[in-house]
Amino acid sequence: MLGEDNMGGTSTLKPEDEMLNWGRLILDGVSYSDMVGARDRPADVTWFNYWMNLADGYEQEAARKTALGHSLSAGEYFMSAALCAQYAQFLWFDDRREKGQKRKVELYQEAAPLLSPAAERHELVIDGVPMPVYVRFPEGPGPHPAVIMLGGLESTKEESFQMENLVLKRGMATATFDGPGQGEMFAHKRISGDYEKYTSAVLDLLIGFQEINSDAIGVLGRSLGGNYALKSAACEPRLAACVSWGGFSDMDFWDEETPLTKESWRYVSKVETLEEARLHVSAALETRDVLPQIGCPTYVLHGVHDEIPLYFVDVVKELIPAELLTVIVEPDGDHCCHNLGMRPRYEMADWLQDVLGRATENASTNETMGGKPNE
Amino acid sequence: MLGEDNMGGTSTLKPEDEMLNWGRLILDGVSYSDMVGARDRPADVTWFNYWMNLADGYEQEAARKTALGHSLSAGEYFMSAALCAQYAQFLWFDDRREKGQKRKVELYQEAAPLLSPAAERHELVIDGVPMPVYVRFPEGPGPHPAVIMLGGLESTKEESFQMENLVLKRGMATATFDGPGQGEMFAHKRISGDYEKYTSAVLDLLIGFQEINSDAIGVLGRSLGGNYALKSAACEPRLAACVSWGGFSDMDFWDEETPLTKESWRYVSKVETLEEARLHVSAALETRDVLPQIGCPTYVLHGVHDEIPLYFVDVVKELIPAELLTVIVEPDGDHCCHNLGMRPRYEMADWLQDVLGRATENASTNETMGGKPNE
Repeated sequence: MLGEDNMGGTSTLKPEDEMLNWGRLILDGVSYSDMVGARDRPADVTWFNYWMNLADGYEQEAARKTALGHSLSAGEYFMSAALCAQYAQFLWFDDRREKGQKRKVELYQEAAPLLSPAAERHELVIDGVPMPVYVRFPEGPGPHPAVIMLGGLESTKEESFQMENLVLKRGMATATFDGPGQGEMFAHKRISGDYEKYTSAVLDLLIGFQEINSDAIGVLGRSLGGNYALKSAACEPRLAACVSWGGFSDMDFWDEETPLTKESWRYVSKVETLEEARLHVSAALETRDVLPQIGCPTYVLHGVHDEIPLYFVDVVKELIPAELLTVIVEPDGDHCCHNLGMRPRYEMADWLQDVLGRATENASTNETMGGKPNE
Repeated sequence: MLGEDNMGGTSTLKPEDEMLNWGRLILDGVSYSDMVGARDRPADVTWFNYWMNLADGYEQEAARKTALGHSLSAGEYFMSAALCAQYAQFLWFDDRREKGQKRKVELYQEAAPLLSPAAERHELVIDGVPMPVYVRFPEGPGPHPAVIMLGGLESTKEESFQMENLVLKRGMATATFDGPGQGEMFAHKRISGDYEKYTSAVLDLLIGFQEINSDAIGVLGRSLGGNYALKSAACEPRLAACVSWGGFSDMDFWDEETPLTKESWRYVSKVETLEEARLHVSAALETRDVLPQIGCPTYVLHGVHDEIPLYFVDVVKELIPAELLTVIVEPDGDHCCHNLGMRPRYEMADWLQDVLGRATENASTNETMGGKPNE
């Protein structure tokens, strides 16, 4: 069974040993009991089957709850099922990947209307490719600020549920989607250098809602999404705040990536060799040429124990105007500081609330004075 | 350091090895990262100091957040601090106990007004002894059903936060307090056979709120609280629902208790010897004589791997009218089924929502028809 879980030569470690960050799973909403069950599962149950079976079980619970009229519990169970499908597939690049992704998408789609607050599904079409966007509105009267949330190398629109909840509780709407190389978009488009185009399309969508304040829309991206967030903020002047959560400015550190992460880059690049992947993502993810264009308050969170080297922090300090920049370097933090519990997440959510709150105030002051919003 | 953590002769195990239930800590809201930190702490840091230091750190974060106007994060931090103080002290019976309890009480008092929804503090005085009660109201217009939540042998009004949230999200108010032998009451009164008097006093308080539907007030108790819940329901006809979560009907299983639990019974009994403790709690916690009086729907959750023997299930089936009884026996469950994740908690919260919802409907039907509420 060990063989089945291996990457076939690139590593002798099992993927879950090499790549797994238990803090991430817990903070994203995976049950501690399921995590213990995964660790202690029988030798003849594969990682993939363990989590996919759990997803089936949670789906059945959800159906039972729906039949009983308990939509809140049903939504939680569908959400748990979607997370199980995510973590079933995320370390592999064979047919498990596609099966798990498909399951996650359909389970989240069931969860969406039952979440509290609900996630509304909207369909954009970009270059002929359908792109679902999920929007959640906070309680209370609007117009609300909003945060566009970006997934990463193998995280998608379905996994930000817990972080969305923190943002929503602080009075901000959320929007999630899959861009090039991610989730539902992957079949249509590989990872590419134009993610910001998709962020802007979602911003266009959000501006159309009267419940949302178009002057107070920010972006938050995690891991690779933290790279996309920076580029989106640099290229989209309508964004009023940017959070790069465990992001990076470029791929100069390619050689330091783990074998499994390199394989993951190859997979999302849809190329044959690692060298082709390196060339492709190095070009696609370069942001240093555009970072000086950033015009909105920008928050960068980096953990010193991240595989992503610390030079990234020097880059942002050099290229992004100092008066716009908040840099948090956590000396004990790992990638995305998942090992530090809720604190980094509260900090990001509160910072967004402050910055987008000020953007709201400025916009209304300008309006009262007959001026135009900042552009 | 091992010596300091020992019970001094009653056991050679460290208390955290003998008694600790990690699933309980996580589900009650302790951070996974803090739990990992506790397990891997340096050899010269005691369990007690580790958690008390964390409590101090969270308190400082809370103060910082308060100063910045981020009351939501401040409340979460105070709550985390209170939980750390709880789990610092809960396995010991020397001055650590008092220090940790005092800290927990003051930290929770800071958290209470900042929680979402807030916990309102009310002071009852019973037999000359002050008894604070915390009440939380769900969002939306009332009158709401309500659930009185009972702590156990070493759990107090401060630890039910996560379960309260599930109940609140389902439209029910919550009330928490410390009864004889628990938390703030312990200094004034040891564990005794009249816990139901305190439940009824809280019910009187709740009936006074116009936001609460006096015909739809239930009780839920965990562990020893599950014993108190059964007795409260048997003695208080105004209770409309009862949940016994890992409870028991009597102390006939004394001999099967762990040495540390026996010590805990001795401590809350304020007696010198274990034999005195056995006699005292056996009398105080006997419910079999009153269980047949229960007149409201009653839900009993029991895990087969609980230290509390399965005969308890036979007792409730024999003594509580079958038409009122829902018994869930979880074949894989431990004490209170903490090892099964959120599922048992969703089940209890949804059941309360159903039963108290029906109580609300029945009461309003009676009112419309000019009749009186069931008595």
